Amino acid sequence: MSAGRLQSYVDAILAIAATLLILNVTATGGGPLSHRLVDAWPSYAAYAVSFLTIGVIWINHHAILRLVDQPDPLFVIQNLLLLLFVGFLPFPTHVFADALRTGDGARAAAVFYGISATLMAASFNALWIYASHGRRLLRTDAPERVVKGITHSFRPGIALYATATVVGLFSAWASAGIYAAIAGFYVISGSAFSRE
Amino acid sequence: MSAGRLQSYVDAILAIAATLLILNVTATGGGPLSHRLVDAWPSYAAYAVSFLTIGVIWINHHAILRLVDQPDPLFVIQNLLLLLFVGFLPFPTHVFADALRTGDGARAAAVFYGISATLMAASFNALWIYASHGRRLLRTDAPERVVKGITHSFRPGIALYATATVVGLFSAWASAGIYAAIAGFYVISGSAFSRE
Amino acid sequence: MSAGRLQSYVDAILAIAATLLILNVTATGGGPLSHRLVDAWPSYAAYAVSFLTIGVIWINHHAILRLVDQPDPLFVIQNLLLLLFVGFLPFPTHVFADALRTGDGARAAAVFYGISATLMAASFNALWIYASHGRRLLRTDAPERVVKGITHSFRPGIALYATATVVGLFSAWASAGIYAAIAGFYVISGSAFSRE
Amino acid sequence: MSAGRLQSYVDAILAIAATLLILNVTATGGGPLSHRLVDAWPSYAAYAVSFLTIGVIWINHHAILRLVDQPDPLFVIQNLLLLLFVGFLPFPTHVFADALRTGDGARAAAVFYGISATLMAASFNALWIYASHGRRLLRTDAPERVVKGITHSFRPGIALYATATVVGLFSAWASAGIYAAIAGFYVISGSAFSRE
Repeated sequence: MSAGRLQSYVDAILAIAATLLILNVTATGGGPLSHRLVDAWPSYAAYAVSFLTIGVIWINHHAILRLVDQPDPLFVIQNLLLLLFVGFLPFPTHVFADALRTGDGARAAAVFYGISATLMAASFNALWIYASHGRRLLRTDAPERVVKGITHSFRPGIALYATATVVGLFSAWASAGIYAAIAGFYVISGSAFSRE
Repeated sequence: MSAGRLQSYVDAILAIAATLLILNVTATGGGPLSHRLVDAWPSYAAYAVSFLTIGVIWINHHAILRLVDQPDPLFVIQNLLLLLFVGFLPFPTHVFADALRTGDGARAAAVFYGISATLMAASFNALWIYASHGRRLLRTDAPERVVKGITHSFRPGIALYATATVVGLFSAWASAGIYAAIAGFYVISGSAFSRE
Repeated sequence: MSAGRLQSYVDAILAIAATLLILNVTATGGGPLSHRLVDAWPSYAAYAVSFLTIGVIWINHHAILRLVDQPDPLFVIQNLLLLLFVGFLPFPTHVFADALRTGDGARAAAVFYGISATLMAASFNALWIYASHGRRLLRTDAPERVVKGITHSFRPGIALYATATVVGLFSAWASAGIYAAIAGFYVISGSAFSRE
Repeated sequence: MSAGRLQSYVDAILAIAATLLILNVTATGGGPLSHRLVDAWPSYAAYAVSFLTIGVIWINHHAILRLVDQPDPLFVIQNLLLLLFVGFLPFPTHVFADALRTGDGARAAAVFYGISATLMAASFNALWIYASHGRRLLRTDAPERVVKGITHSFRPGIALYATATVVGLFSAWASAGIYAAIAGFYVISGSAFSRE
């Protein structure tokens, strides 16, 4: 399995998962359409946050694969697991957006989104740790500075999502704000990797 | 991030967004199927207009990337934002088509479609201005004539969509006609770029 | 626009349109699930016929692009129009399958499927005629024998689909049988092109 | 038809089919959302099993195409048939998950999933037998050890799925367990191929 072929499959699933998010955006309910379109804003926000989150994973995954010499079987499986969690994201996004709009089960939905995102971040960290530990899969010319930079940027992901998950037990909106902030933080820090 | 990898991700999301449009075409309602299939024509027209609009964005995006030497982080983010708005397009397309068919909230839907399209055009202009200002990201051999041609072709996009949005406040059908005309205009002018 | 980039976009939309077909397969209705799964066979057949039809278009489109030197703007637009009709196919497939199962409006659905397929075949013929007339876009080394073979294979497509459309006015099932036979015919003849 | 173009189309359809699986995951029903999200676990499990099954097909298909010199027309058609069955998988996955949750028609759904998976495994074996018999399509430098390894790994697939299908006549849950075990087995054994 070449790095290029792995990247193509990862790219395709990330692109599809991001684009499918829109299928769950709706403006149902009562009242005139203009009101319903405005009231649906949590759906738009959830779409944007998950879309950008997947976009950041795409940027960061490229940063990783540029450093990897030859994917080995376990690394390929770890990528499949990451894709499994990314491909799942449209469902908790849909659940969370609907719950925020209707107020029904919003905290449960915040926790559910958080668990999904935490597993996604954990699987991303796992494949990076596997590839970078002792420079197992890294190119011999991969700059140590870049390797360390990726490690430092990814590490907080799990803790951030886990924190937002716990916050969701008490306030769905506070939890939603943290998810949006994480996406914003990673859009900025993730873009820094594409500089290399 | 190489221009080729960025193009692949952009192409994938444009292709998916365009193809997902069909999922929102329906022929529900009362009466015999033959009548319902005819009455659903606004859905077919909305599908065609949005499909061709995305196709034009694909053509024009290629015209841009052929001139870009090395995407930098901010350019990658600007592309993500463009994709965010293109990926959103199936929703306002669906809303507008349904509203035209049922007559319920047609003007609100026209304005909603217009706002989405205006944001899409604005994000497209933004990434082009960023790339081309002072020839920031352009290849040294990018012909000035082509650069100017793209600038002249893109600039009216925002104003055209904004106009159609305002028209939508008064007449949904007039607004729909302008959206169709814009798509037609860009199919023709956009195709001119592929000549270079 | 290079032939490779055009091919990538065409391939992506064909692949997505083919895979989206499954989303319209359902086994709703009354009775035990085992009966409903059996009664849904027209949906499976419609899925298979449209999936293979798109697969054949993919094979044949490759046969064309291998002969094309440099796509020009009008050729790119003609490809967009072909994609517009292929991307539409999931809708008439869905309508036809449902109508065959319920018996409601089956002939209208057969005609509707036929019109869609005829337009698709016409747009495919149009882009081939444009590219091959006077060898306008063909490589200088494109063998005349292959060019003639493609022309002979494509030409009957429009008449075949138009015939099935007219037959649909009288019998939906006879029309469905012709659509299946056309797909089967093109799977076999289309595969012959990949031999070149 | 080059091996690279065939691989791209196969990859695209596998990626789309895997990602579409999430659209059928729902948490409908009565009770608070937190309960519904927990009760929906068969949908998550079905998503994971089918997603990983498709991922394994992707890995194994690469292992095959790396050995194939030049796809011939019949091989391309066999790939279309494999894609037809893989593209169908989201439907039986959806049916099976719903039946396990509601208990309505679970055994019929288990058998239906099994028939679909058996046909998929059979079409995969068929294309491999066609390509490898007498080394018909294999590169002259394809190592016999790898060829034999693929044959040994693929052969049990049909029997395993057929067994699970028969078990489904008596117990849907036992059948579901076997499908999960097959996916797990192939994730591990399939990953071994990417070692080559």
